[in-house]
Amino acid sequence: MNEQSNIPALPVIAIVGATGVVGAELIASLASRNFPLSRLRLFASARSAGQTRAFRGEDILIEEISEDAFAGIDIVFFAAGASLSRKYAPLAIAAGARVIDNSSAFRTDPAIPLVVPEANGDTLDAGASLIANPNCVAAIAAVALAPLHRAWSIRRLSYVTYQSASGGGAAMMEELRAGTQAALNNGAFSPTELPHPYAFNLFSHNADIDPNTGYNGEELKVIAETRRILDLPQLPIGVTCVRVPVVRAHSLALSIRFEDHVTPDQVRTCLSDAPGLRIVDDRAANHFPMPSESTGVEDVLVGRIRTDLGDPSGRTIALFLSGDQLLKGAALNAVQIAEHLHTNAPH
Amino acid sequence: MNEQSNIPALPVIAIVGATGVVGAELIASLASRNFPLSRLRLFASARSAGQTRAFRGEDILIEEISEDAFAGIDIVFFAAGASLSRKYAPLAIAAGARVIDNSSAFRTDPAIPLVVPEANGDTLDAGASLIANPNCVAAIAAVALAPLHRAWSIRRLSYVTYQSASGGGAAMMEELRAGTQAALNNGAFSPTELPHPYAFNLFSHNADIDPNTGYNGEELKVIAETRRILDLPQLPIGVTCVRVPVVRAHSLALSIRFEDHVTPDQVRTCLSDAPGLRIVDDRAANHFPMPSESTGVEDVLVGRIRTDLGDPSGRTIALFLSGDQLLKGAALNAVQIAEHLHTNAPH
Repeated sequence: MNEQSNIPALPVIAIVGATGVVGAELIASLASRNFPLSRLRLFASARSAGQTRAFRGEDILIEEISEDAFAGIDIVFFAAGASLSRKYAPLAIAAGARVIDNSSAFRTDPAIPLVVPEANGDTLDAGASLIANPNCVAAIAAVALAPLHRAWSIRRLSYVTYQSASGGGAAMMEELRAGTQAALNNGAFSPTELPHPYAFNLFSHNADIDPNTGYNGEELKVIAETRRILDLPQLPIGVTCVRVPVVRAHSLALSIRFEDHVTPDQVRTCLSDAPGLRIVDDRAANHFPMPSESTGVEDVLVGRIRTDLGDPSGRTIALFLSGDQLLKGAALNAVQIAEHLHTNAPH
Repeated sequence: MNEQSNIPALPVIAIVGATGVVGAELIASLASRNFPLSRLRLFASARSAGQTRAFRGEDILIEEISEDAFAGIDIVFFAAGASLSRKYAPLAIAAGARVIDNSSAFRTDPAIPLVVPEANGDTLDAGASLIANPNCVAAIAAVALAPLHRAWSIRRLSYVTYQSASGGGAAMMEELRAGTQAALNNGAFSPTELPHPYAFNLFSHNADIDPNTGYNGEELKVIAETRRILDLPQLPIGVTCVRVPVVRAHSLALSIRFEDHVTPDQVRTCLSDAPGLRIVDDRAANHFPMPSESTGVEDVLVGRIRTDLGDPSGRTIALFLSGDQLLKGAALNAVQIAEHLHTNAPH
């Protein structure tokens, strides 16, 4: 946070963790959104250095990350885990770059903006040099929650999740595929990425459990980050995070209690007008958000819009969302933050 | 409901729909629980008549169902769908049998007991000749909800489900396997049982949607049947039913609001003492209920017992359950009802 760089009209962009699944989607999102840049540099560990990745018809060499790698870079995306972010992000900032960090390293620091552009993009106006990219569940939900909160004031919230393998990276996605093939063959399979069998199974999220509350680390992130993004530090939030055998899109059952009575039609109209969302709510065709249709899609799909019959006051609305964990839940959101930085760069 | 039969010490038992997945589990449960019977008769459509099924070391011939099939039978399990139950159950009763119906045909008739023995087995004491076996989600949940309601009075309830393929029968289970194999091979697959691809996907339950409320038929069953089983006709219940790519056990995220403050430890103690449940709630090992461990198991697994942080009053408890849809959600519960009939038979 010690300074902010002047971003030129065509900045130099870098990705740390370029060979991971989020790194690959960052490269793809920069290309598909035609992000204005003069040069893209890709960093990874020594093990991957020397490989190349295609970007806009060019093969870009992957460089080994090092402490003096950041000279001349304007924006760095970190997608290599919290410990690498803690080590290298301060060096990148000291070298004059602005950092967008996909890890959980800085998300709870109140001095560092935690941003979903559709929800709280205005927090970027202050020109921070380090911006945290939220947890995937919180980011996907915020696209729908922010316009609803602006319209009617959210008072309580409940999340129940259906989280895909991609949240655990390429190895977990491969474990799902390989374990499922073994199950179909009635063969043995020993999971290495996860504590439980994944094929045709589901289980409570594998993050460590807080022994006092019984909530796991993923659930505590969802609570803390949703409160920050919505700027509702006391919002009561219930959450159950579950891994399901889906490859890369997360789905969420949300129950949202508002200050006053709200109808499903009012909610549908509000969400239809909001950026980053696509309404998929065809009751006659039984067609609602699902991972097979949200995978690879920038918009978060939202449907099953109805009054939650568990609250007789009529103030609670139930929704079902599905969003690509690697796009709005990670790479796309980071690139959208970078677009804000670029648009709002100090001159 | 016109009469009740005298059940002899060793009754003659019949299964209508013996070749379906629930029929197969009825045969297996009668065997594994050593149900006292003098003879087992198996009925199915003409297409399956002439096949045999093994039971206690004997091959039992499958007979074609007919209007005069029920003479001399004491208890008939119906597991062949609602329209066949509507047609044949009255004939079985007229012939002197007592009927346990696994379909939805009679579940909403207030004159017909809807029974989960652990929850409301006492309703069988009146000697009804027709007993409805509940919806699988309602039955699995009731095993945990009934003792909690007795202890602390449930005031509101929320269900979010992770429902397996077995609820749709053998063809849906095979569609999940075949579709998944095709997806792993990057091959094409056209679903015939379901409106959406099932491999590595999930979607809102495929029951028809009520256009007024936006709730689907499965959800409305869960609401109506939970109210009946708990004898809480006005209980506010929110519910979201989702099909996940799991073969045969259902999982449920429950949020239960009580009249007064209740602690997770109190709930754990209550559930530890309740029949039909097994606590799986090891926070240190991250080991909670999951389909891979509830499949083929009679007990419903319950864990993730914690205060629901979405309710600041401390009166709401969150739970996660997993139970075998074909056992407690269908065949086992029906056999347990028959055990009550047998034990409480008039002499």
